[in-house]
Amino acid sequence: MSYTPTPQDKFSFGIWTVGWAAQDVFGSATRAPMPAERAVHKLAELGAYGVNFHDNDVFAFDESDRDERISAFRKALDDTGLVVTTATTNLFSHPIFKDGGFTSNDRDVRRFAIAKVMRNLDLAAELGAKTYVCWGGREGAESGASKDVTAALDRFKEAFDILGGYVLEQGYDLRFAIEPKPNEPRGDILLPTIGHALAFINELEHPEIVGLNPEIGHEEMAGLNYAHGIKQALWHGKLFHIDLNGQHGPRFDQDLRFGAGNVEGAFWTVDAVDSSDYDGPIHFDFKPPRTEDDEGVWESARGCMRNYLILREKVRAFRADPEVVAALSAARVDELSVPTLADGEDWRTLRDMTVDVDALAARGMAFERLDQLALEHLYGVR
Amino acid sequence: MSYTPTPQDKFSFGIWTVGWAAQDVFGSATRAPMPAERAVHKLAELGAYGVNFHDNDVFAFDESDRDERISAFRKALDDTGLVVTTATTNLFSHPIFKDGGFTSNDRDVRRFAIAKVMRNLDLAAELGAKTYVCWGGREGAESGASKDVTAALDRFKEAFDILGGYVLEQGYDLRFAIEPKPNEPRGDILLPTIGHALAFINELEHPEIVGLNPEIGHEEMAGLNYAHGIKQALWHGKLFHIDLNGQHGPRFDQDLRFGAGNVEGAFWTVDAVDSSDYDGPIHFDFKPPRTEDDEGVWESARGCMRNYLILREKVRAFRADPEVVAALSAARVDELSVPTLADGEDWRTLRDMTVDVDALAARGMAFERLDQLALEHLYGVR
Amino acid sequence: MSYTPTPQDKFSFGIWTVGWAAQDVFGSATRAPMPAERAVHKLAELGAYGVNFHDNDVFAFDESDRDERISAFRKALDDTGLVVTTATTNLFSHPIFKDGGFTSNDRDVRRFAIAKVMRNLDLAAELGAKTYVCWGGREGAESGASKDVTAALDRFKEAFDILGGYVLEQGYDLRFAIEPKPNEPRGDILLPTIGHALAFINELEHPEIVGLNPEIGHEEMAGLNYAHGIKQALWHGKLFHIDLNGQHGPRFDQDLRFGAGNVEGAFWTVDAVDSSDYDGPIHFDFKPPRTEDDEGVWESARGCMRNYLILREKVRAFRADPEVVAALSAARVDELSVPTLADGEDWRTLRDMTVDVDALAARGMAFERLDQLALEHLYGVR
Amino acid sequence: MSYTPTPQDKFSFGIWTVGWAAQDVFGSATRAPMPAERAVHKLAELGAYGVNFHDNDVFAFDESDRDERISAFRKALDDTGLVVTTATTNLFSHPIFKDGGFTSNDRDVRRFAIAKVMRNLDLAAELGAKTYVCWGGREGAESGASKDVTAALDRFKEAFDILGGYVLEQGYDLRFAIEPKPNEPRGDILLPTIGHALAFINELEHPEIVGLNPEIGHEEMAGLNYAHGIKQALWHGKLFHIDLNGQHGPRFDQDLRFGAGNVEGAFWTVDAVDSSDYDGPIHFDFKPPRTEDDEGVWESARGCMRNYLILREKVRAFRADPEVVAALSAARVDELSVPTLADGEDWRTLRDMTVDVDALAARGMAFERLDQLALEHLYGVR
Repeated sequence: MSYTPTPQDKFSFGIWTVGWAAQDVFGSATRAPMPAERAVHKLAELGAYGVNFHDNDVFAFDESDRDERISAFRKALDDTGLVVTTATTNLFSHPIFKDGGFTSNDRDVRRFAIAKVMRNLDLAAELGAKTYVCWGGREGAESGASKDVTAALDRFKEAFDILGGYVLEQGYDLRFAIEPKPNEPRGDILLPTIGHALAFINELEHPEIVGLNPEIGHEEMAGLNYAHGIKQALWHGKLFHIDLNGQHGPRFDQDLRFGAGNVEGAFWTVDAVDSSDYDGPIHFDFKPPRTEDDEGVWESARGCMRNYLILREKVRAFRADPEVVAALSAARVDELSVPTLADGEDWRTLRDMTVDVDALAARGMAFERLDQLALEHLYGVR
Repeated sequence: MSYTPTPQDKFSFGIWTVGWAAQDVFGSATRAPMPAERAVHKLAELGAYGVNFHDNDVFAFDESDRDERISAFRKALDDTGLVVTTATTNLFSHPIFKDGGFTSNDRDVRRFAIAKVMRNLDLAAELGAKTYVCWGGREGAESGASKDVTAALDRFKEAFDILGGYVLEQGYDLRFAIEPKPNEPRGDILLPTIGHALAFINELEHPEIVGLNPEIGHEEMAGLNYAHGIKQALWHGKLFHIDLNGQHGPRFDQDLRFGAGNVEGAFWTVDAVDSSDYDGPIHFDFKPPRTEDDEGVWESARGCMRNYLILREKVRAFRADPEVVAALSAARVDELSVPTLADGEDWRTLRDMTVDVDALAARGMAFERLDQLALEHLYGVR
Repeated sequence: MSYTPTPQDKFSFGIWTVGWAAQDVFGSATRAPMPAERAVHKLAELGAYGVNFHDNDVFAFDESDRDERISAFRKALDDTGLVVTTATTNLFSHPIFKDGGFTSNDRDVRRFAIAKVMRNLDLAAELGAKTYVCWGGREGAESGASKDVTAALDRFKEAFDILGGYVLEQGYDLRFAIEPKPNEPRGDILLPTIGHALAFINELEHPEIVGLNPEIGHEEMAGLNYAHGIKQALWHGKLFHIDLNGQHGPRFDQDLRFGAGNVEGAFWTVDAVDSSDYDGPIHFDFKPPRTEDDEGVWESARGCMRNYLILREKVRAFRADPEVVAALSAARVDELSVPTLADGEDWRTLRDMTVDVDALAARGMAFERLDQLALEHLYGVR
Repeated sequence: MSYTPTPQDKFSFGIWTVGWAAQDVFGSATRAPMPAERAVHKLAELGAYGVNFHDNDVFAFDESDRDERISAFRKALDDTGLVVTTATTNLFSHPIFKDGGFTSNDRDVRRFAIAKVMRNLDLAAELGAKTYVCWGGREGAESGASKDVTAALDRFKEAFDILGGYVLEQGYDLRFAIEPKPNEPRGDILLPTIGHALAFINELEHPEIVGLNPEIGHEEMAGLNYAHGIKQALWHGKLFHIDLNGQHGPRFDQDLRFGAGNVEGAFWTVDAVDSSDYDGPIHFDFKPPRTEDDEGVWESARGCMRNYLILREKVRAFRADPEVVAALSAARVDELSVPTLADGEDWRTLRDMTVDVDALAARGMAFERLDQLALEHLYGVR
């Protein structure tokens, strides 16, 4: 097995991932800025299917070079056949967004932010994107009184209602995907997890076109299980996009290449995606470490895809392994799919029944045997 | 100011809190078991308003002493005037629940669990409880294949649908309150945060009678901001109950007395509750440390209430302080309550507008001044 | 490759690991208590080499059954040929130790604790143990004023000085190994990490017979890199013993079987051990999950050893892979072993030198390529 | 009480704190660069005593403006009377240090780093600094094979041995203070905690002139108790400097102003410092949030000092409160200062003694009463 990606694998990358110049809080850039078209050409060579972009990954904040840069980007897409699967707006880098975009205390900033999104929605639609990601990186607070959270949620909803109406009115074939994050760069960010964002969507005017873009690292920064998270998002019909990368639990946002970090979590993530009806892009949102030069950037991008293919092969072998099937059965995993009430039963049935408490209490769940089989598939020794 | 609680303050305690005999993973009990009626009498003396109980806080799992123990409990309630505000079911201590109650892989365990809840719902209604808490402490997994999360959410929903139907059919004046927790005692617990539980409720047959019981420590174990969390729950109209205690961030569940642990978080929690329309019990779910004897137990219970009263006085002084009002205004906190679109405006208005980007970018938010005022109120030096 | 352990692999287990009856803070035991001799027989069958024991893993706290239980334990050892590699004292389960053993505020408790250790040192020596582990699980505090940390460190030192003198005076061939832990069951534990314990040892009267027993889960609960930690312990000549298990970052102490949890960390741990001069037992300190019955207990014990053997094979293949050797060289990993000053150089050489700053700044470290090779060895696809 | 700082309070600030232009991983600077002399003048106005500086806080990395900028800095110091208490080297911002300074895999980078430190040691000595801080922010790794930790510790030691020799040979009245940090900007940093750095110092050629500069936020990022940590550093005689700020547990490095974040931790920190023989500067290492303009910068700097004074008043009142003295005694805190062995006793005494186990086990520690008193002092209601 070659683990060489092809467009059929639907791998996509944010332009800002390979394009990150590696500036951080404690140091300046170690790599040169990368024009979007270079990222497109290189990703195509590596076997990617598509790209995702922030407006300011392509052109400057002041838009002085907008047309010229979009032309170059579009030409690269045309030349390579790479698809724009997804787009998003940078509402976090410029100082104007220091207190957020949709929920900035400054009303003029909020108005500017929504307008900025609208302009990029037009471009996204023009370039054929089907998903529009919204990461509210600066929507949050460092201190308790500085943000009226109730009002902030009202404004957050207002922004999505305006933008949802805009997309529907324009007839764009676009759905929004909210990307939750618990903290960093703000002390606490609004809609901090998959769950909070799912709940929020239910209050919107156009909930049908708003879903989620959960990122591995963001959930793991809160110590949460990403595979569980996306399964709940799928259960609600809301997994519109995914952001794959690597992280070592609660600490700063590491954005490691996919497969590194929580390796076991990566295995179960691929299992969750591969066994679901999710058919969107397999999107990587990572940062090649600041130690790497240009060659290292492409090594890490290649690694993301390769690791996905390796893990996909493994999870399929795991699910097909007769010993695993037997172990799942011994652990009564399938029994959880049997409704607790049988047809025709209701609560009265339960009130009247008796069970053999001691026997049920004594019965082992046989989970360790099952997990050891999974681990051996991960290790590649079965 | 005396900080002496009265029933008007609506303070309530779980029977299991002061009654905890202090067994943990690494050691045996350091205190004697406490009959529920003793807890009731002592809590009444301390100025509490009400109590919350698991079925097995009052009587044994095998129910052999059920009637007798309920009589004693009821007599204590009558003698003291303490209210049963809330009840809940122990679906986590007995070995039968080692893989959960509503989502155990074993169907018979699920059936038994639902029946156990129904029996205690009857008692809860009889004793006048208005809220029924559901903490799914064992609904989770340690390993990836052992729990089919999709099926588990189906079963979780099925349980709430059955129980919701039961309550409505019986005409009980009871609402359910789901208590999220990210982990411990399971490696990962389903519905790990306020957000996940809020989202889940939207899929139920009777969402109107299901809300939340968020606990400070549980959210902080995931590094989340509790005040933000309950404000989002309030925004959804779903804050049905609260569990107050103390915690030092991501680590084991400490269940410190309220006021200890994250002191700043406690201040903002009381501010969030006190400035909202929440009018349920102010409920403490804590564990007197294993180092304490009986006297220490009551010291810690008294401390919970006292600290709430101290903080309530502080947050009211904070909100009334003219310097704070001015600082909030300087930070444009109120401006967030102004809709981003004015009456008559729509997205077209925003598309056409211009703002002074440089001026907005340069403008400071003045949050540090505001937070320093808050801190000085917390410190009691203003 | 069979991954079947033999005594030559030097695998050892705490009696308390497979013997854990699975009581936790939220629930009672799900398994029957296990006599030490049963653990010995079963571990021998599985291919283990040795065992480690707390005094009260073998006999009761009140010692009423001491002789009888030790006889049974010893007979099992004789029958199976299993070695007692290690022993330790239970200074944490009984209520008397609720504020610690060596650093309890109660002086009589401290005296009792030291005496309890001495009695078990005699037994340890008699049974041939070479290492005596000291885990100070209850040496700590939940609140700031309750523990005078300076005095506590004095008393901690006093205990090790007394016990060190005792061992030397008795002529026992025993060395102490301190096991650090950051928290749980206490809010904060003294000597919370490998580093704190290493520093402490330097202040002892007999530092030469005191080293460390670092546990994977304990370091990872503080978000620390275990492989880095044991490499620093080795650098100080102080890695006397190891406790291998699994954990998912900062949360409660999970004690998963070795290989589960942080899989990548397990790979680097085996690499660190296998490439070092450590020749003590490969000791597992884990807890079979509360979901498991007796069969599951042995599955998980077997898994610990099997995973070590799998990973040992992998790290050896990794180190022997010519592409890895080349990648290490490209990353200048070996250059770090070259002293910064050459023979005959001193600080003057450096003051006067110039380097090509721009060239050094531009040079990539090629770490991603190297880490991808490691990951592919871990995945078993190279 | 005015809480207005005076130079007698010995408050000092890093030039880089108030001077931080607020660039982070996700956004560009929101404030203008601040010349060192401006920081000096403003800090003097606010009542500070001294400053700490990195070489490149004063002049550019290429040193083209070195003399001119140092003159301006020195003039500001002379004009204001502010003391240079401390200095340090920037070995982390420039791309050349992307893999560290003292432990970079590139030997030429290590040589350059040591030379850079020497040049700034000369300046530090000339400006009268007594402490030289070493924060090894980039000394670490993101992946397991990329750093040979054993070799790295050798090189780390080599650097301190060279620099220690240099300082002694030059006759500078300077001591080094190592500042540990667990992670960020590297995935894992070497010498991650107070403990690891204390242990490391013992291996140096000149351990007497090397101590610690622990930072609140850095220890709390690992979930460790900072007051415990500095008490252990003091116990080893190694608390040479302190970095005070605020943090909310394991997450990115927040560098909040002192007093915010973990408020309870701040109280116990001031208690630890104020009750010790530490007489160095009370140094703040924080970052005014990116939301603040110039006025907000000074608000936050003022807040650091003010909060220290508020807390100092509180901890002194706490220690002087007769009820606290009684509660400490009831909790037997003083009994921990009584040696476990009396004069003339040895291990034989303990072997032969008996204690009343049941009485000791039953006795409560009375810690909750004590902690409640502390909390009420913190709240300012006693």
